[in-house]
Amino acid sequence: MPAPPVGVVGLGQLGGSLAAALVAAGRPVAGWDVDPAARDAAAARGVRITRELSGVVVLAVPLPLMATALDGLDVDPDATVTDLGSVKRPVLEQLGRALGSRYVGGHPMCGTERSGHAAVDAGLFTGARWALCLEPGTELPRWLRVAEVALAAGAEVVPVTAAEHDDAVAAVSHVPHLLAAALAAAAGRAGPLALALAAGSFRDGTRVIGSDPAFVRAMVDGNAGPTAAALARVQEQLARPWAELVADGHAVATRPRGRRAVRVPLDRAALLALGRAGGAVTRRLAAFVEGRLPDDGLPDDAVPDGGVPGPA
Amino acid sequence: MPAPPVGVVGLGQLGGSLAAALVAAGRPVAGWDVDPAARDAAAARGVRITRELSGVVVLAVPLPLMATALDGLDVDPDATVTDLGSVKRPVLEQLGRALGSRYVGGHPMCGTERSGHAAVDAGLFTGARWALCLEPGTELPRWLRVAEVALAAGAEVVPVTAAEHDDAVAAVSHVPHLLAAALAAAAGRAGPLALALAAGSFRDGTRVIGSDPAFVRAMVDGNAGPTAAALARVQEQLARPWAELVADGHAVATRPRGRRAVRVPLDRAALLALGRAGGAVTRRLAAFVEGRLPDDGLPDDAVPDGGVPGPA
Repeated sequence: MPAPPVGVVGLGQLGGSLAAALVAAGRPVAGWDVDPAARDAAAARGVRITRELSGVVVLAVPLPLMATALDGLDVDPDATVTDLGSVKRPVLEQLGRALGSRYVGGHPMCGTERSGHAAVDAGLFTGARWALCLEPGTELPRWLRVAEVALAAGAEVVPVTAAEHDDAVAAVSHVPHLLAAALAAAAGRAGPLALALAAGSFRDGTRVIGSDPAFVRAMVDGNAGPTAAALARVQEQLARPWAELVADGHAVATRPRGRRAVRVPLDRAALLALGRAGGAVTRRLAAFVEGRLPDDGLPDDAVPDGGVPGPA
Repeated sequence: MPAPPVGVVGLGQLGGSLAAALVAAGRPVAGWDVDPAARDAAAARGVRITRELSGVVVLAVPLPLMATALDGLDVDPDATVTDLGSVKRPVLEQLGRALGSRYVGGHPMCGTERSGHAAVDAGLFTGARWALCLEPGTELPRWLRVAEVALAAGAEVVPVTAAEHDDAVAAVSHVPHLLAAALAAAAGRAGPLALALAAGSFRDGTRVIGSDPAFVRAMVDGNAGPTAAALARVQEQLARPWAELVADGHAVATRPRGRRAVRVPLDRAALLALGRAGGAVTRRLAAFVEGRLPDDGLPDDAVPDGGVPGPA
């Protein structure tokens, strides 16, 4: 079966980069953006500009616009719809209600503090993890079609539920934005001398709050519960004796990153187990997917429902 | 008067880089290290290896070794002694008691998570801020001799008191290490899925805790009071409504960085005022120093005791 067409709604940094990566991979890509300049830039990269979309339709618009992103577009009623939003439960509630099992939530873990079509980069997804939601009601064939789009763009696919995703990104993405903001704001109050002495550790620790504040607010407000819980867990860590805290944080930050190959059957439980064990899908074959699992002491049965360790 | 000789004790990343920068700037540099490999590496870069040190003697050893760094060395009794330690009050108490007004505390705001003589880089200090302590008892001519060493290495000199320095670096350096540790430790407890989804914001937010834990512990424990106070101020920020926090942090992180030239007389109060206003000394002339002040709204009289705005 030939790969389905891909339609990208929103041709800014993420959507434009995805379209460019897919064009580079030889897949036909259609797309639309309300901004004529973004449309022109995408057309120049080989994207067919149209309101008629089918196959896998990717919503690459800011979270506040997600619910209305398809308004005015002519989308095939059998299209699979996915998105690139940084939180998944709220989008699942909105789009899952409207689209049912045709909706598969996704979130590529990339992007920079730049935005807009001028920041498009066909290599943005290369090697990135792309969380892809497998809810109880998700149709596995549609999930696999979206996974193949992510793989074609150069990413690895992490099978998750929306709830697992939102908890995880609260810890590794949303809380870092709040910590960066607090660090910068407190240094600002400490005064000009402190800012004059700020060097590498301050620059690294505050870089992410250089992003558009409206984007950061939509992200943390859209995932408020998990973010507040993850922030409380960071504050528990800050209450520990510093020697323990420093040793523990150092161990996590410098953990070994080796990975080993696994095969996982086309089965929701097995795929989610791969994701929970820190693994990712790297390739789809007919009857299974190939993936990689962290090589740092997780037992081979971390993928209990059929993960077959060994060279894929 | 010719520039005094420089002797560097400890030829690891910081001391070796300083020696290399000064050799490159044409200044004669002597040095010593307990490690023969570090001595050989420095000798190959043009450092004269000897235990007999005079002029400006720079202690580039870890904080726990500072008090005994001169043991076994033959140091000119009139030498000015400075150090590169990341906290200043404790070193002032130790060395100030032993050396009196011959001690001038310093702290270049550079260095990386690498260490040792293999990490030596003659450009490490280029453009870096170098805090240099002007206590009530500091002899200004000795302070200026050390400042000229820092300037020769490519740094800008920030006049501070030890207490001001320790409060400032708690906010912009020591707290960032603890936040990075807490972020990493909390993510480690969140589990393999969270670590698998960790991307740029987590990498930036945890990078600094990749440093040697013993070094980080010595730094925060050596500055425990100011670090605890600065951490409490960050926690106050974290209790603010997120919209305010994000807007405020973004404004500090993206503040304009323009600077304007000033002239400052050779006077302790005027130099400290320059430092408090976020300024730095960039050049020494006979009767004054040239410096730069942030150009972001500080009034021209931010250097009240003689700072003369205008092209230097």
